[in-house]
Amino acid sequence: MEVKNKIILALDVLSMDQARELLDEISDYLDTIKIGYPLVLAEGLEAVTQVKEEYQCKIITDFKVADIPATNQKIANVTFQAGADALIVHGFVGPDSVASCVESAEKQGKEVFLLTEMSHPGASQFLQPVSMDIAHMGVEMGIQNYVGPSTRLDRLEKIRSIIGKDSFLISPGVGTQGGDPKDTLKFADALIIGRSIYLAPDPVESLESIIDSIEF
Amino acid sequence: MEVKNKIILALDVLSMDQARELLDEISDYLDTIKIGYPLVLAEGLEAVTQVKEEYQCKIITDFKVADIPATNQKIANVTFQAGADALIVHGFVGPDSVASCVESAEKQGKEVFLLTEMSHPGASQFLQPVSMDIAHMGVEMGIQNYVGPSTRLDRLEKIRSIIGKDSFLISPGVGTQGGDPKDTLKFADALIIGRSIYLAPDPVESLESIIDSIEF
Repeated sequence: MEVKNKIILALDVLSMDQARELLDEISDYLDTIKIGYPLVLAEGLEAVTQVKEEYQCKIITDFKVADIPATNQKIANVTFQAGADALIVHGFVGPDSVASCVESAEKQGKEVFLLTEMSHPGASQFLQPVSMDIAHMGVEMGIQNYVGPSTRLDRLEKIRSIIGKDSFLISPGVGTQGGDPKDTLKFADALIIGRSIYLAPDPVESLESIIDSIEF
Repeated sequence: MEVKNKIILALDVLSMDQARELLDEISDYLDTIKIGYPLVLAEGLEAVTQVKEEYQCKIITDFKVADIPATNQKIANVTFQAGADALIVHGFVGPDSVASCVESAEKQGKEVFLLTEMSHPGASQFLQPVSMDIAHMGVEMGIQNYVGPSTRLDRLEKIRSIIGKDSFLISPGVGTQGGDPKDTLKFADALIIGRSIYLAPDPVESLESIIDSIEF
């Protein structure tokens, strides 16, 4: 996946009105947008279709899919049919659940991102002890795309070493959560940034300053 | 939670047309329906509102919520606002993520079910080694409602022993996946049943036969 300016916008707003207000300002700087369940539950899966068509961008649906294989596949099918280009999937539910999303993606020419580790405090209890095993599972399954946190660079480096240099790694946590853009990009291919942009008094200025900090 | 006939219908269909066709036949036997993401993604969160109003039932949204606390809370808020009476939440992502759903539920007079263990083969890799720890975490957090699998009764018994006799435990896996209704109810308070009902040639007959097998 190619990501303009190495920045994926986390469009964590709760209405299409807010989404359009933000995107009308900043969409020139972006070509990849991550949409999660809050917006989709509030506005329907049409939100994915609308953002994609109106702003001519790639959509990564961050649904952290974590169900049994049959249900995962139904979720993936309907999400890709709505226009999502990629889907973020949890690995801790096991390889069969992940494989059902991969199968759906391959049938529709779409992509799956495997979530390896999360950066909130509670992730330390069950998820972090196995996040490298989840990355290894992804490699064994032939998965090309991964998500890993920018708030723990030693962990991100380790994830990169497991998935190899040719895999595609995207990383949330820059900005509000404390991750540094340039440092993160030593290991990640693109940054996922939300609050630092959409909560900024001037989103364009904030985005430009992040882009500058990456380039220089 | 009180569940009529100790059966929760897993409404795993992909359209409101299919949902109504099924529920028109069998809703007299039920007062609690579980709705997952496939139907909600296909028809919008209005599906929850509509099923609840049209069939005067309680709705458990099986979203297996597994995100960071802030996102979990947004998902819980919008889901409860749509009329869901309870929300199924993954414990694997940690106590803060679960707590954010509990907080949302308490504010709106709703309930959270903590998913302890899943019954598909892939669950053995990462989830089952910690599922009892997840149940213990739920108890420490004061959670009253749990989900555990009917396909592994020794595990279900263990979950019951951890959460105590006053907690409410619901169990999927009866029927197509091989779990026995009566045996499961030695440990669970209610069964979650989907395919054995909605894929049956005669859903009413199938449901009546399950109810009979529980009672006698």
